[in-house]
Amino acid sequence: VTTPEERAAAREEQLEQLRACVAERAAERAGDCLAGLHPSDVADLVEDLEEEERPWVIASLPPARAAEVLAEIEPDRAPERLIEPLPPDRGAAILARMADDDAADLLGPLSAEARERIVASLPSTRARTLLSLLRYDEESAGGIMTTELVALAAGLNAGEAIEELRRQAHDQHEPFYSVFVTEDGGRLAGIVGLRDLVLAAPEVPLRELAEEPPATVPPELDQEEVARQLRQYRLPDVPVVSAEGLLLGRVTWDDAMEVVEEEQTEDVLRLSGTDPDEQVRGGWGHAVRTRLPWLLVNLATGALAALIVYLFENTIDQLVVLAAIMPVIAGLGGNAGTQSLAVTIRRLAMEGGLRTGRAQVALKELLVGLANGAAVGLVIGVVGLLWQGDMTFGLVVLAAMWGNLVVASLAGALVPIVLDRIGADPAVASAVFVTTFTDIAGFFLLLGLATAVLL
Amino acid sequence: VTTPEERAAAREEQLEQLRACVAERAAERAGDCLAGLHPSDVADLVEDLEEEERPWVIASLPPARAAEVLAEIEPDRAPERLIEPLPPDRGAAILARMADDDAADLLGPLSAEARERIVASLPSTRARTLLSLLRYDEESAGGIMTTELVALAAGLNAGEAIEELRRQAHDQHEPFYSVFVTEDGGRLAGIVGLRDLVLAAPEVPLRELAEEPPATVPPELDQEEVARQLRQYRLPDVPVVSAEGLLLGRVTWDDAMEVVEEEQTEDVLRLSGTDPDEQVRGGWGHAVRTRLPWLLVNLATGALAALIVYLFENTIDQLVVLAAIMPVIAGLGGNAGTQSLAVTIRRLAMEGGLRTGRAQVALKELLVGLANGAAVGLVIGVVGLLWQGDMTFGLVVLAAMWGNLVVASLAGALVPIVLDRIGADPAVASAVFVTTFTDIAGFFLLLGLATAVLL
Repeated sequence: VTTPEERAAAREEQLEQLRACVAERAAERAGDCLAGLHPSDVADLVEDLEEEERPWVIASLPPARAAEVLAEIEPDRAPERLIEPLPPDRGAAILARMADDDAADLLGPLSAEARERIVASLPSTRARTLLSLLRYDEESAGGIMTTELVALAAGLNAGEAIEELRRQAHDQHEPFYSVFVTEDGGRLAGIVGLRDLVLAAPEVPLRELAEEPPATVPPELDQEEVARQLRQYRLPDVPVVSAEGLLLGRVTWDDAMEVVEEEQTEDVLRLSGTDPDEQVRGGWGHAVRTRLPWLLVNLATGALAALIVYLFENTIDQLVVLAAIMPVIAGLGGNAGTQSLAVTIRRLAMEGGLRTGRAQVALKELLVGLANGAAVGLVIGVVGLLWQGDMTFGLVVLAAMWGNLVVASLAGALVPIVLDRIGADPAVASAVFVTTFTDIAGFFLLLGLATAVLL
Repeated sequence: VTTPEERAAAREEQLEQLRACVAERAAERAGDCLAGLHPSDVADLVEDLEEEERPWVIASLPPARAAEVLAEIEPDRAPERLIEPLPPDRGAAILARMADDDAADLLGPLSAEARERIVASLPSTRARTLLSLLRYDEESAGGIMTTELVALAAGLNAGEAIEELRRQAHDQHEPFYSVFVTEDGGRLAGIVGLRDLVLAAPEVPLRELAEEPPATVPPELDQEEVARQLRQYRLPDVPVVSAEGLLLGRVTWDDAMEVVEEEQTEDVLRLSGTDPDEQVRGGWGHAVRTRLPWLLVNLATGALAALIVYLFENTIDQLVVLAAIMPVIAGLGGNAGTQSLAVTIRRLAMEGGLRTGRAQVALKELLVGLANGAAVGLVIGVVGLLWQGDMTFGLVVLAAMWGNLVVASLAGALVPIVLDRIGADPAVASAVFVTTFTDIAGFFLLLGLATAVLL
């Protein structure tokens, strides 16, 4: 057991060695210093090289090893750019050694010409499979499935099935956890876990061992929903089945876990008012392009809040202390709004839509807003009273804070529910809407009440 | 393939039927209307019942079925409260039929007396296993591992291994994907994938088939890091090994996926300034208790920002239009700060700490702040110039916005990096720190510059 610091130091050293090899174009030594490392660790090292250093490492590895490493390079590091500069036959040799879903992910982002060059060098069945996978939306079940699976005829018995398994398994690159039992030329009839097959007596027919799969997914299903099904039924893989009942492929748990991570990043970024496509490890130019549009949207909604303040310029002129209270009331409203927003968005994400009534969620947030608004309002009201020595001033501050926290709680729940209801992503722009609401409500309540009763 | 609406309607109907059965205490009909449903779907229905209706459903199911359902009830719905009211021998009968990690999760939150009553009714080996699992921190590898695994002596050959597998597998409740090869009474010598075992010739010794596991984890390792290892090496399960090399158990991919979801919820809640322990589907009283403390923290930091404004009361008095500009500059700073914060926190979470240099991340955010600050500053500067017809006013507004966006970008990156560096969770309270920074910097820059050059 090494400490995180020791591991980081070892990594740093490996990276330095690799950099030195790249600098000298020393392919043999590069192979040496990467030997014994898991492909996934090699991929991490390659990711940390400068962009122009990476292709050489892939080019210097034997095709089988290059295939393993490429499959592990994160999509945000553009692994396709590592295969593009290779001679087409070498690119094809690498793709032929990858699981078909990983290979299709590499082909997808290439230019049409680059893709055709490589596909032309592939064996024709492989080429057909990859092109068929590319037809599906990349965020659908079809887009993340592999066609590599073990499908066995229902008429076999367990002993024959294991024989047949041996034959089918040898050209597979993906691990498998269950065998799919088919009838009538490709219709899915059931599944048998690998464990049950191993444990069964050899003469038992597959038809008897087969169980109805707890879930099957159509190829068009959104990847997030696919991941939810795998998690719900704890399935290491789920069959993808066409409308006619034909077995098209399967989605494995590791791809589902990647989807969960990807969606998680998107939700966090959206909630924080930035673009979900921002690459977490991208450069500063990329970050400017993805973040600036959202800042400009916020500038426009901020102008609305500024307008409210401007309309009450006269009130502030007469009672300047209001200018110091304003940001506190707007800030607390923003905080309460994002609290309610975050909880509602997680609820929508985990359940795949609201399972309980919308009215119930709204009622809960109304009560939370009333309770927290009263508590925070009381604190700031008493501070206001003591500070200005004026009961009415204290009450105005209390009422503005209370009202704004009720608006905030409700808006935080209703904005994502409405977005979800109309089919939009509940996380997108929710934060901007909600803080705009709370800024406007906060300023309007404070300055309006002050104008009405204090002047 | 049914539409989401059809599924929701079918669910609603099942729930109504179940409610009717609960109301009439009609155990047989409840069994009927739940028959044919996957345990995970039954668990979802039970979760949606009122809290007082739930125990009866579990009590009315046969122990094996109750065990399957209880294992699927989410921790936030307190499944332990469903087993607590049962007679101890019935509780024990259910626990005996669960995977040991799930059973330990149920025992953990019970009162000492309730736990002892149930444990006393369990077979003694089972009781010992469960009590040993409870010794580990519940968010560590030991806390989420199962001791159910297939461990085989390295001296067996593949054929003997499958025979032995048949014997060991029959009392297991967890699926298994690989067999663990041990030597010297319990030391882990390697792993063999179930697939490789099936495909091997019967006379090959296990010692030859065994591969070094890409990862093993110590029982104390944080669950988040365990999940990262499973994902990194695409392992369906990872062995948990003591400092002496003894095989203690394994963590399976489905538990790792739950960890990822759990941590995701925590991060989103923390980033939104609420408590990570808030139950997303909890009641309003619970939400008030978890959210109010954070609002009060924000009230305190907001008071700091208010103090800055108050110090410049005189300036605002002379130029009231500043009161309308203030929230725009603070708001944009908050937005830019949370953008940078969200990206940095996701980066830390995905890589398990920063892989590239801290200075590099800070430099990136500095450049982003300079670029976006210049762009947004220019827009608001021109608006200010046109509005007030005063070039100096426009420049003050531009400079304040620009400066605040630089502070925001840097703070958004540095606050979580520093928290991570000192061993704290980078997401906790980051948002409150960052917005406090940007509020104070924004107000100070705008009002300070205005005081210096406009009055």
